[in-house]
Amino acid sequence: MIQSKGYAAQTPETDLAVWDFERREVGAHDVQIEILFCGVCHSDLHQIKNEWFPGVFPMVPGHEIVGKVIKVGNHVKNFKLGDLAGVGCLVDSCQVCENCKEGLEQYCLDGNTQTYNNKGRDGVPTYGGYANNIVVREEFVLHISDKLPLAATAPLLCAGITTYSPLKHWKVGKGHKLAVLGLGGLGHMGVKFGVAFGAEVTVLSTSPSKEAAAKELGAHHFVVTSDPEQVKEVIGTFDFILDTVSAPHDMNMYLSLLKTNGIHICVGVPTEAMSVQAFSLLGGRKSVAGSNIGGLPETQEMLDFCAAHQIVSDIELIDIKDITASYERMIKGDVRYRFVIDMATL
Amino acid sequence: MIQSKGYAAQTPETDLAVWDFERREVGAHDVQIEILFCGVCHSDLHQIKNEWFPGVFPMVPGHEIVGKVIKVGNHVKNFKLGDLAGVGCLVDSCQVCENCKEGLEQYCLDGNTQTYNNKGRDGVPTYGGYANNIVVREEFVLHISDKLPLAATAPLLCAGITTYSPLKHWKVGKGHKLAVLGLGGLGHMGVKFGVAFGAEVTVLSTSPSKEAAAKELGAHHFVVTSDPEQVKEVIGTFDFILDTVSAPHDMNMYLSLLKTNGIHICVGVPTEAMSVQAFSLLGGRKSVAGSNIGGLPETQEMLDFCAAHQIVSDIELIDIKDITASYERMIKGDVRYRFVIDMATL
Repeated sequence: MIQSKGYAAQTPETDLAVWDFERREVGAHDVQIEILFCGVCHSDLHQIKNEWFPGVFPMVPGHEIVGKVIKVGNHVKNFKLGDLAGVGCLVDSCQVCENCKEGLEQYCLDGNTQTYNNKGRDGVPTYGGYANNIVVREEFVLHISDKLPLAATAPLLCAGITTYSPLKHWKVGKGHKLAVLGLGGLGHMGVKFGVAFGAEVTVLSTSPSKEAAAKELGAHHFVVTSDPEQVKEVIGTFDFILDTVSAPHDMNMYLSLLKTNGIHICVGVPTEAMSVQAFSLLGGRKSVAGSNIGGLPETQEMLDFCAAHQIVSDIELIDIKDITASYERMIKGDVRYRFVIDMATL
Repeated sequence: MIQSKGYAAQTPETDLAVWDFERREVGAHDVQIEILFCGVCHSDLHQIKNEWFPGVFPMVPGHEIVGKVIKVGNHVKNFKLGDLAGVGCLVDSCQVCENCKEGLEQYCLDGNTQTYNNKGRDGVPTYGGYANNIVVREEFVLHISDKLPLAATAPLLCAGITTYSPLKHWKVGKGHKLAVLGLGGLGHMGVKFGVAFGAEVTVLSTSPSKEAAAKELGAHHFVVTSDPEQVKEVIGTFDFILDTVSAPHDMNMYLSLLKTNGIHICVGVPTEAMSVQAFSLLGGRKSVAGSNIGGLPETQEMLDFCAAHQIVSDIELIDIKDITASYERMIKGDVRYRFVIDMATL
């Protein structure tokens, strides 16, 4: 076994703290990565606090992982020592069901294996990226370009693919009006991708103070959703809303902002059920859809797209010892737009 | 003005009763139809009871209207005296917005004019088909084939187009597994169209007693949704659910029955908001969509399709004096599958 060091929550009630644990030995198809940076996703906090479902404890969060390959198994074909590599939200899946065969491992019909807060196909708990290393079978390891700043690349592994995938799936691009709801880790990537794909992008936010920042990210318009006058002006105008908000919000109001045939795409996960009036949908053949991260081939495509277009996340690099304080700032929305842990501080 | 006779609710608290009222004179672009049959839609009851929104009273319900042309205006081009003709849920729209130009008058951006419980563009209340005649501009009048039994054609004007349109829009057909939720006026038409389009059709119902009837309509399978064992067998198996139920129901359970990328299409309108967990959508890139009747060109297309394929509604012909008792039976689901008023009894 590989002696490893990370930050873990021992229970939902305790703060994260240093924890020594074991990773499996590097198998024939495995890649071991020395983790250099790991992004801090809001879902890390949801999960260590058991807000979605009872978790697997002790829990080492983190699924926006980048680093260097330090060991490869005998049968590994696509990675070698010293390569930059990344790991996102998934570390395994059945790889034989129709979804896996289509590269939709996130929707594996046998259930995917998540990077942390899960048990692997061997029954052993998975531990995430707030750690000095990780061992993952190569099919779930991504190539990371050396043309991008490495720390700012980490959030692409979750926030990036989570927003890239639905925009690609629903073919959002030139001629479309896209609203991005919420300007946090996911939202700011949604703006960057929406702009890169050629859409006319509007940020919808309750915080007037975010307007300048939204425009800096490339957004064409900004609407303060707490101002009824501003909202009235955009009723029936959007082809798509990319909804990155995980706090409860008024779905029927947002649905009224869509054009006929418009699609409201949820990528955030509110802990409470959404309340949707049938009339809000029937009134314009509208849809509420959900999209969950992305499969491995598409994640690699996204990373390559980002390298080609010089797209990374806007980040604030933190010391891992400040993780609890950073969570508190994240809850308040006080981060532009993603904390990334410098694993040298572990 | 044209002296007319119909059945009206004077208030939401009173039963329908005979009422004499006036229609406008036949204008240059108008067609006057002697109403021979009118279907009884569940939405008639929702509206006279003010269950959706405050109505326009006195209210003459009815938007599944067939009859004979008895007068045409000077500029009417497509109808002549003696033609069979139908009127559905719409009698007017702006006719110039982008949706109207695309034949999506039901989504008119200026607001469509409904056949009853609405005010026309002249400010005058509209009165529906529980009456001896109706005057409608010709763009909103449909041609009815003489190859189909006329009374059974009436429900096509609402129940027919409401189920035909979404199946066409989402291209439901060969190779698809379609579940039809609810086997009433809408549901039984959904089964007929689903089968006609080549889909493998399953009826989902809480009533085991409906299985034989569902199979008679052409459904390939039947699942009793109150039986957890039967439900378990169809988890993750449907490409589409056509949801015709207007009583509250557990959306998250039904969403679990969809395949990856599956679409739950609502055509019924529950009076309460639907409660949808984000995970129910994200777990398989699923959607909840709504569809509202259909536009005029598509309604004509549907009627022509029905004539070519000998598709009509299964009906029970009633005397208009029995309308209140028929509503009571409709609430209990005791009708196969649509009451149609024989207007000779008025």
